[in-house]
Amino acid sequence: MEKKLKFGVLFSGCGVYDGSEIHEAVSVLLAIDKMNMEAICIAPNINQHHVINHLTGEEMPETRNVLVEAARIARGAIIDIEQVNINELDALIMPGGFGAAKNFTKWAFEGPAGEILPSVKKIIQAFYNAKKPIGAVCMAPTTIAKALEGTSAGVQLTIGNTIDKSPYDIAAISGGINQTGNLAVMVSVDDVFVDKAHKIVTSPCYMMEATISQIYVGAEKTVMKVKELVG
Amino acid sequence: MEKKLKFGVLFSGCGVYDGSEIHEAVSVLLAIDKMNMEAICIAPNINQHHVINHLTGEEMPETRNVLVEAARIARGAIIDIEQVNINELDALIMPGGFGAAKNFTKWAFEGPAGEILPSVKKIIQAFYNAKKPIGAVCMAPTTIAKALEGTSAGVQLTIGNTIDKSPYDIAAISGGINQTGNLAVMVSVDDVFVDKAHKIVTSPCYMMEATISQIYVGAEKTVMKVKELVG
Repeated sequence: MEKKLKFGVLFSGCGVYDGSEIHEAVSVLLAIDKMNMEAICIAPNINQHHVINHLTGEEMPETRNVLVEAARIARGAIIDIEQVNINELDALIMPGGFGAAKNFTKWAFEGPAGEILPSVKKIIQAFYNAKKPIGAVCMAPTTIAKALEGTSAGVQLTIGNTIDKSPYDIAAISGGINQTGNLAVMVSVDDVFVDKAHKIVTSPCYMMEATISQIYVGAEKTVMKVKELVG
Repeated sequence: MEKKLKFGVLFSGCGVYDGSEIHEAVSVLLAIDKMNMEAICIAPNINQHHVINHLTGEEMPETRNVLVEAARIARGAIIDIEQVNINELDALIMPGGFGAAKNFTKWAFEGPAGEILPSVKKIIQAFYNAKKPIGAVCMAPTTIAKALEGTSAGVQLTIGNTIDKSPYDIAAISGGINQTGNLAVMVSVDDVFVDKAHKIVTSPCYMMEATISQIYVGAEKTVMKVKELVG
């Protein structure tokens, strides 16, 4: 039996407003399994920046842990980012959600000036330097932009486009990506952008107005293109 | 433009061990959208029975609300079960997870003797009496069994089978379903059972050992069969 490819899936919590966007997260896991590959769920063992009541949008007076909450999506099968051996993984994929810009970086509050979590920077740089492909959807490409800030030759990343409808300020976030020394590229919601030279694949997903079916299409295309880039 | 069918999707929280199983929940939402129908997310505004740390399996000293946590899966677009007008809905679907047997009923602790939440009993009886179809996967068929206990002519429900591998005691839970005056039926993980006379569709999903792809297949078949039963 041929050995299955192993994809690390990096979570930032459980819920669009303070963690990983759940539809994107499940879509990535489903696409990986459909392509007969194995998902290894990963998250940092840190407190979330905050906890948002997803019914009201208001902050809750609570503390939650990113690894513990992400374990809800992973059904318990998840490992601490500090325990990851990238030699055992073929690729890394990051679902989106505000967790990417609140727990991995502080982009949601400070734009591209916000600091990135060292363990997240380290794992992204490790995959990049090992020439192993990285995929990211929705807001997560900004985490790649921060991780490779000043070290890359200008990676091309997409978070959507300024023509179709979006709940977010795509022009501003794209400008932020450019400020990190990388290059924002515009694509439509159910498409992906493949930076072949740097082995990085990105797709807008819920950065644009989208149905859950479009999210699945974007996630599946991302997983497929990352799979094609595995050496 | 033809009016879209509207499916109520009833959530019991956000996470397999104390709420709705997330892969099943997202699979149901994805299947509904793929079939060009509309999902109306619903949950009761009550505290969860308890909060389980999904990394360790241990109880956490916290209180969480079912509606607020389910809003994470629904991205905020969810209504209180007390606000539902079933005249506006064509069918009801319930994802699984322990929330069905901890928050909707107390089956996880007391088996079929455990009480059912009145609002959940009421909505299931309302759909049943209106001859509008109901779908349920994983552990959620036990909630239907409790809701229709003593009132139905013996609805046929499945939670899996005793031949293939399962993490749970399928024989005992099936026996419990029979004790409610309904009838447990055995099917394999990626199949569904359709009780046409009572317009109820059930599928095992994660009650059996399963991959996330098999979960999607079971959820999609359930949604499809429910759609076919819409009057």
